[in-house]
This record gives sequence, C-alpha cells and structure tokens, in this order.
Amino acid sequence: MADYARIASTGKPKVVIIGGGFAGLELVKSLRNAEVQVILIDKQNYHTFQPLMYQVATAAIEAESIIHPFRKIFDDQKNFFFRLAEVQRVDTAQQFVETSIGLIRYDYLVIATGATTNYFGDKLMEENAIAMKSVEDAVQLRNTILCNFENSLQLDDHEQLNSLMDYVIVGGGPTGVELAGALSELRQHVFPKDYPELDFKSMDIHLIQSGGELLKGMSKEASVKSQQFLEEMGVQVWLNRRVKSYDGYTVTLDTGETLITRTLIWAAGVTGNPVEGLRPESLLKGNRLQVDEYNRVAGYENVFAIGDIAAMVTPENPQGHPMLAQPALQQGELLGKNLVRLFAGQPLQPFVYKDQGSMATIGKNKAVADLKLFKKEIKSQGFFAWLIWMFIHLISLVSFRDRLAVMLNWAWNYFTYNSGNRLIIGKKSETLPVTETITHKTVI
Amino acid sequence: MADYARIASTGKPKVVIIGGGFAGLELVKSLRNAEVQVILIDKQNYHTFQPLMYQVATAAIEAESIIHPFRKIFDDQKNFFFRLAEVQRVDTAQQFVETSIGLIRYDYLVIATGATTNYFGDKLMEENAIAMKSVEDAVQLRNTILCNFENSLQLDDHEQLNSLMDYVIVGGGPTGVELAGALSELRQHVFPKDYPELDFKSMDIHLIQSGGELLKGMSKEASVKSQQFLEEMGVQVWLNRRVKSYDGYTVTLDTGETLITRTLIWAAGVTGNPVEGLRPESLLKGNRLQVDEYNRVAGYENVFAIGDIAAMVTPENPQGHPMLAQPALQQGELLGKNLVRLFAGQPLQPFVYKDQGSMATIGKNKAVADLKLFKKEIKSQGFFAWLIWMFIHLISLVSFRDRLAVMLNWAWNYFTYNSGNRLIIGKKSETLPVTETITHKTVI
Repeated sequence: MADYARIASTGKPKVVIIGGGFAGLELVKSLRNAEVQVILIDKQNYHTFQPLMYQVATAAIEAESIIHPFRKIFDDQKNFFFRLAEVQRVDTAQQFVETSIGLIRYDYLVIATGATTNYFGDKLMEENAIAMKSVEDAVQLRNTILCNFENSLQLDDHEQLNSLMDYVIVGGGPTGVELAGALSELRQHVFPKDYPELDFKSMDIHLIQSGGELLKGMSKEASVKSQQFLEEMGVQVWLNRRVKSYDGYTVTLDTGETLITRTLIWAAGVTGNPVEGLRPESLLKGNRLQVDEYNRVAGYENVFAIGDIAAMVTPENPQGHPMLAQPALQQGELLGKNLVRLFAGQPLQPFVYKDQGSMATIGKNKAVADLKLFKKEIKSQGFFAWLIWMFIHLISLVSFRDRLAVMLNWAWNYFTYNSGNRLIIGKKSETLPVTETITHKTVI
Repeated sequence: MADYARIASTGKPKVVIIGGGFAGLELVKSLRNAEVQVILIDKQNYHTFQPLMYQVATAAIEAESIIHPFRKIFDDQKNFFFRLAEVQRVDTAQQFVETSIGLIRYDYLVIATGATTNYFGDKLMEENAIAMKSVEDAVQLRNTILCNFENSLQLDDHEQLNSLMDYVIVGGGPTGVELAGALSELRQHVFPKDYPELDFKSMDIHLIQSGGELLKGMSKEASVKSQQFLEEMGVQVWLNRRVKSYDGYTVTLDTGETLITRTLIWAAGVTGNPVEGLRPESLLKGNRLQVDEYNRVAGYENVFAIGDIAAMVTPENPQGHPMLAQPALQQGELLGKNLVRLFAGQPLQPFVYKDQGSMATIGKNKAVADLKLFKKEIKSQGFFAWLIWMFIHLISLVSFRDRLAVMLNWAWNYFTYNSGNRLIIGKKSETLPVTETITHKTVI
C-alpha cells in the first residue's frame, strides 16, 4: 500500500479540497480564520480565471495574466497547505485521498473538481477538435491559428488554403460567441497587417449552434442582438444544426451540409469530472454528484461537493444549478461558513442561489448583458454592456497586479488593435497534417 | 529536388537573412527604405530579448514581455517578408537556401544564426544540464525550480532534500552572475513565503567559475564588487574550478571536490551556430565564420555574416569581436547601409566597433557598470549602476508596450518582492528522476 504524503499535522481538523477552481478557491478564502488545516490538492500550481481564456487563445492577453499560483494567493493564510498532485481515488471508509505523491488523510473532504469537455462519446471529435477548458488549450489554439497562417503562405490550391484559413466553432454559448467575435476582429484589424501576402476575404468563421438561438439561458434580446452583432462582423451563424462528424478536415452537419477546416473548436458542452471511489448512486446524469442543500454529497456525512461537479437538485432546479462561476463562488463561500458552524455545533444554512445575471462580449463596444441588480432586471446590449463586462471581469481577477496587466493590454488593444502576444511558444501545430498531396508551387 | 517556397517576387534584389536575433533584426530595420526584398527566415516567429531571459527563468517577468513577433515588429515595413522555417543548408552556387518549407532563392545572403550553448563535447552534461539560450530554456528552468520545491515537501532524507534545494550555476559571466543573484533574492524574500514548510537555510547556491575572477572582460572593480555583492547575499562563489563531470546528481570538480544537485545551469560558454553548405575554410575556431571588415564571408562575394556567428579577425581583435549584443547591433546596422551603398555603386564603409561598455545586475540596488560615454570611462558599482542597468534595458526592449509591461513588473517587484509569475506551465520536470529509493515517510 502507498505511503502517506508528508504534510505536518497542525492538530486541527483536516479539510481536504480537491480542485482550485472558483469553488475551491472561494472555500479556502472562506476558511481563512477557521480552526482547521486546509489542504488544497490540484494538478496545476495555479488557479485559472476561465472567463478570459478565449482572450489568451486570440492573443489579446498573456496567459500569465489569468493564471495565478495558489501559493502566492494564499501566502498569508496560515492554515493553508497546498499539494501539487494528481488525485487517483478517494477512500471514504478510511478517510484518505490517494494521490500521485501518496495518501492524504482527511476529516472533511470537499470535491471541487469542476467539469471537463463533453464530446458525447465521439472519439474522432476528441482527437481532432481543440477544446477550451485549460490555459494549455488556449495556448494550443493560439499556436494553431498562427501556424495555420504561416502554412497558408505556402499553399496554392483553393480548398487547401481555405482548410487552413477557415474556422469552425461548435457551441453558441458564451465561449463560442466570444471566440467567434474575437477571431472576427483579428481578421479585420490584425491579421491583414501581419500577413499582407494573404487574402483575408477568404477567411470564414462559422459558428454552429444546435438550438434555435445563441446564448441560451440569457434573454431573448441578448440572443437576438449577439447574433446580429456577429453577423454584422461577418461571422456565419448556423442555428439548429449539430455536427455529425469531423475527421480533422471535413465537418459534416446533421443536415448533410459540409464545411472544410483544419481547426474546429469544440465549445459545445461539459460534463462533470468526478473522482473515483465514491458510491455510484451519488452520481447523477451529466456526471455530477448529488448534494443536499448544504452541498453534502448524498450518502456521506463528511464529504461535500461544490461548483460544477455538484448537482443540488431542487423543485426549482431539477437539473441542479447552472455550471457557471457564480453558483461555484457562492457555494464555496457558504460551505466555508457552514463548516465553521458545524465545528461550533451550530445549525447549517441552506444554499440559496442569487443569480446576478450573465453577460457576453462580442467585440469592441459590443456586448450583451442581463443583470439582476437590487431585484431589478437590467438588459443592455452594445457599448454600455461592454463597459460593464470589462469592469466586472477586471475586478474579478485575482490580484491587483493581474488587473493592472489586463487593463494595460485592453487599453493598448482598444487604441491600437494590436496587442503583440501573437507568439508561437512551445508545441507548434504539425505542418499540414491531413493531406499530403499539397504541392509547394514555384512562384518565386 | 525540393520545390521552391512560395514567396511572390517584388522584382527587386532578394536579401535573405537567416536568424532574427539582435544582428538580423537591426539589419532588417536598416534596410527599411532600401529598394530590396528583405526575406527573414527564423525557426521561431518571434525575436528574443536575450539579456532579460534570466528574469523569465526566475519568475520576475513574463516570457511574453521579452519576445516579440517579427510580423508585428515590421508590420509597416513594406519590403519585409517573413518565413517560419528551419534552414537545412545553403547552396551558394545556385544561390538558394534549403528550408523545411522549400527552397528560398537569394541575391544576397546574410548569416545571422548567432551562437549556441557549448558543452565542449560533454554529452552527459548536455543531457543533464539546463541551458540558458532560449525562452523555452528559461521557462524550463522556472518549471524545474518550482517543481523541485513541490517535490522537496515530500522528502525526509537530508541529502535527497539538498539535491533538490541546491543549485549549481556553471559560468561566472553576466548570465551566471545575474542568475545567482536573482535566485538568492528569491531565497531571501519570496520562496519562504510560498513554502513556509521548507527550511530555506539549507538552500545553497553555488557559482563556479573557471578563471580567477567573475565577469571576465569587465574592470577589476566590477569583478571584485560583483563577487562581494554575491557573497554578501549568501552565494557560494567557487573560483579557479572547472566541472569535470555531472551525472544529473553529483557534480565533480577538477579539484576533486563534489557537490550534490539535481539542477545544474550551464552558462559556461557558447559556440557559433553555422549553417551547412559554406566552404569549410571560412569556418574558424569556435565555429565562427571568417568575415572581412564589411562582414563579407571569406571566399564569397554576396554572402555576409553578422553578430555572434561572424569573426572579424583584425590585429586588435585576433579572436574577432566579443559575442555580445553591441557588435551584433552595430554590424547589422552597418551592413544595411553598406548594401544600399553596394546597389548604388558607392564604396563600402569598414566596420569599427564602438564599445559602449558593459554591465551586470546582481540584485536590488546592486549592479556593476563599466561605461564608455563621450570617450570617458565611468565605472560604477551599486545603486547608480543598478539604475543605469534598468534604464538601458528598458529602453532597449523592442516595443513601447513591452517597456510598459516590464516596468510594471519591476516596479511591482521592487516594492513587494513578489511578481506572481511563479507558474508551472507546460512540461513539468520529472518527479525525482535520479534515485528511486526515496521513501515518502508517514508524518501526517
């Protein structure tokens, strides 16, 4: 049997948190003054601010601005311990977590492992599509886009050229909409300056949405207006269509239509990312853990789940809460307070979701927002929504320094449309993987 | 035979430059208004500002701040063409460069391929040491340092722990000195906050120099003072010693002394990085190309070499000019002007090196500088030299935006000692590669 990992005991109850996303991070903060030992396990040494990931992918901001080392965030929180490790499984009978660095004992376990990309079992799609769930995905997309253009310079054949210059984004939620908008702005303002040898009139951006509207879950106004913004910016929006297959070159839709692209971005769904070792009955559809109103996992006394991985099924929320930042933040904060209450023998407070609204940005001066402020609904589309979007995202960044860095980038981009992060770092995408028949013609 | 790469001809003479370091970049700029087609080939899509690389390695600034895409730098230079490609060889008879994307024809060829790490044939060293020649090296070193500490948390055995926490830097030039100083500051101000569980009194930083003084080539005052600064900061400086062997764990010196470390940084020498296909007689000792006073490679009419790869042997410089940024910048600029003179049938101007001095920074408020201003020599050590060092490096950065970003980082670090770039991105260093006998003791 594996040995225990070395974490000196502080003699206080051990709260072990798996995953440092929004929920886990907020829980650690909320336990700041609690008489516990907080042990956070994550396979990265940093927290990722996911809402701005698409801006890393489109070279608007540096990866460094949206990821932040846990040790730095909590360097003045005395009860905080971090371990960089992969979790293999949990043992709820003996109360430990089995990890790549050994066993980690817990008194209270919190699963905050979030969600992962859902390919709905399509192996070919998983192999050929680019996901948007991690900073490494975002950097990979940035590298791919730039290598595509470098490779395009060597092509003559019309279809081959389009396969490199066209983009297909699957999923009309915030990620898909924001990515399509950002790519369209790059096409208009940046790429033609970088690649005067290429004709960007032939670069197409397709956005495919299975339902009849974009930004499902937002207001009718937001859906309509976001589509209008995108179409004005030259994005081809395909509603009521699903992707049937993608082999890395040809996208086949369920309507029989086909598109040609070497770059398909999959933003069409997520599924819970549970850990091994919990009772199977606690796992609901969508791979989420069933929790009660205190985020306690069904069937356990001292195991909790928060954020995307938790499904708090109530009559109002038969599917659990939406898999978004807000419920995660609120659940993390409340669970911290409830754990303190638990230790003090006080009654726990049930979770009540306060939906503060949602928003998405499409381009410069173009965003849509449905806000719930002071019990009033405010719907806005355009410049004002865009200002609010920027403000909310700036103040939500983890540190003051990140805020400064992102603000600098945004201000710079606003005035120049030219951030300068168009760097191919690390793995380059393969040169022309699908067809080997491309001829490099002599035109020198 | 391979096909030609697609680069639409502008009908003007083709100047093909291999390598976008300081020399190549300056040459492109210098040809801004020339009636030529400038074709730059590089295996990266960005220029690297090498003097600040050690700051990326020590998490003081983001990689993005010191690398800059060529296409962005020259997006308003009409005669500029860039190709992302690896050069395989040149054919001077038929006047083309063979690359990974096809053949590229030239009328004038400029080799600006710089230098590469010199391991002096020591294969084991090459395998086990970390170099400091590229941004990818720097990010690898940052990842290694951080993973070392994460792994240290799981260790008990004294020697094993020290092998992870100690650092050996080989080479007492600017890179070695600056890196040792930066690591020492992290040890004092940053790491203990991030890792309160580790005892940083047991972290040793060794700097090994083959000669009798640091910063050879600078003034006696600079050598003495830099050593004094480092020793005050707790760096162990080993003079008059060479590394005999390193197996990834034990460093053996030529004196028989041994040190234990899993992280040896090799900053002990560079060698020219020539391309295949040139006449062997042009290659001098140190793999540099012999050039005349116009940077023309010996034996050719239309092939030039500039920067580190060029050895302009004169009675005053029997070894050629020092392999530093200044001669590279000056040669690049002059060659641009000389090519214009050549096309106009005017006589060329011979290269005369203007040495403006050199400097190195050891820590906050601590630098050494030997400046040559208005034909006067100014030697300074300490705060004033440090201010000058910062000023010169800031204004030397390629773009105004980079300057802002680096300034923001530096100001932040100055006041907080805490930049927040301590991110393990991409490849993590292997967990404990050398010994497999380490036991993870139960101490929880």
